[in-house]
Amino acid sequence: MNFHYPSGKKYKVADASSKQIRPHTPIQFGKRGMSLEDELNESNQYYLSHGIAVVHKKPTPIQIVKVDYPKRSAAVIKEAYFRQASTTDYNGVYKGYYLDFDAKETKRKTAFPLDNFHDHQIRHMKACLAAKGICFTIIKFVELDQIFLLPATNLFYFWDRQKKGGRKSIPLSYIKENGYLIKYHLNPLIPYLNAVDNLLIKQHEGEHNAK
Amino acid sequence: MNFHYPSGKKYKVADASSKQIRPHTPIQFGKRGMSLEDELNESNQYYLSHGIAVVHKKPTPIQIVKVDYPKRSAAVIKEAYFRQASTTDYNGVYKGYYLDFDAKETKRKTAFPLDNFHDHQIRHMKACLAAKGICFTIIKFVELDQIFLLPATNLFYFWDRQKKGGRKSIPLSYIKENGYLIKYHLNPLIPYLNAVDNLLIKQHEGEHNAK
Repeated sequence: MNFHYPSGKKYKVADASSKQIRPHTPIQFGKRGMSLEDELNESNQYYLSHGIAVVHKKPTPIQIVKVDYPKRSAAVIKEAYFRQASTTDYNGVYKGYYLDFDAKETKRKTAFPLDNFHDHQIRHMKACLAAKGICFTIIKFVELDQIFLLPATNLFYFWDRQKKGGRKSIPLSYIKENGYLIKYHLNPLIPYLNAVDNLLIKQHEGEHNAK
Repeated sequence: MNFHYPSGKKYKVADASSKQIRPHTPIQFGKRGMSLEDELNESNQYYLSHGIAVVHKKPTPIQIVKVDYPKRSAAVIKEAYFRQASTTDYNGVYKGYYLDFDAKETKRKTAFPLDNFHDHQIRHMKACLAAKGICFTIIKFVELDQIFLLPATNLFYFWDRQKKGGRKSIPLSYIKENGYLIKYHLNPLIPYLNAVDNLLIKQHEGEHNAK
């Protein structure tokens, strides 16, 4: 059962099976129409269980209005509404670095539409970057079955330019040039921390050159 | 309107006013029976608005079962249940460091009961520590109106000992000796990042001595 946020973002009602990631899910299944979110959750579960990194998706913020308390059973929320998150969806720690990112899918084949983002998400990422966090976006081109890690600074460049009347999407060619291609793998399914390693190396080089 | 988690932890239904922290709230009000959570949210808002750190409380995880879609209005959650969080409540980034912590209140005056914690929270903090995150607990002794930052390693010491039949609480004297007292301040209300600075200095000394 699916429905939509006010933002139009799809939300899947979690069932028992989706609550826990099954480590034995074969990659074929993973690639058969698994959402980017599911793929990332499975990858994060792998990173966690192997002591590599601790990254979680944040729960969806809910505005609770009415709750019932049946005797001898759990409290039941009877009326609640979705709230827009004030942060990105994912954050965590890897090698002592603070990671903060969002994951977005697009069916477009030549560019990534900026309307996938909201002002508050960009504001949050800029604040995290100012606090020396490692910020980026994981973008999946569904039709091409290609996933990229794009550093936040590259996203900001197009975002700020759009605000001044610039184009409303980031060309795939730019993402290929400035981002990091993440190839599907068995364990983890999406080895995005390899891309993060490359991003860190590039940042250290940048700091070094700046000296 | 208040009710309880299965865990017994209080949950306040968020209303419009509690959704956004008011920067102009006078400290007197802040100290008049404000919950530790409210005090921390206000402090984190100060740190965020001054570009010092980005720390947020995670939303309460909800298991959604039934949702209605009235025409021309927002989706309404008609049946949902509270889920136990698999992480701590707070995390974020400060000076490039990943911060991860929980905030607990106790009415006890001489010791902090360990039953304020759950296995999964300790597991999570141990995983974050292994990934070089900065993990701790902020403990408020409500009756004493004293707040301490206790490093996670000190918490683990008592937690693991309890599992082997040791005492079920951490003595205040131990917390005073091994933790960091956080004195109420005007802006921010709870300047806990000062305690984090001291914790970082101590860690660097430890690493230095280990060499």
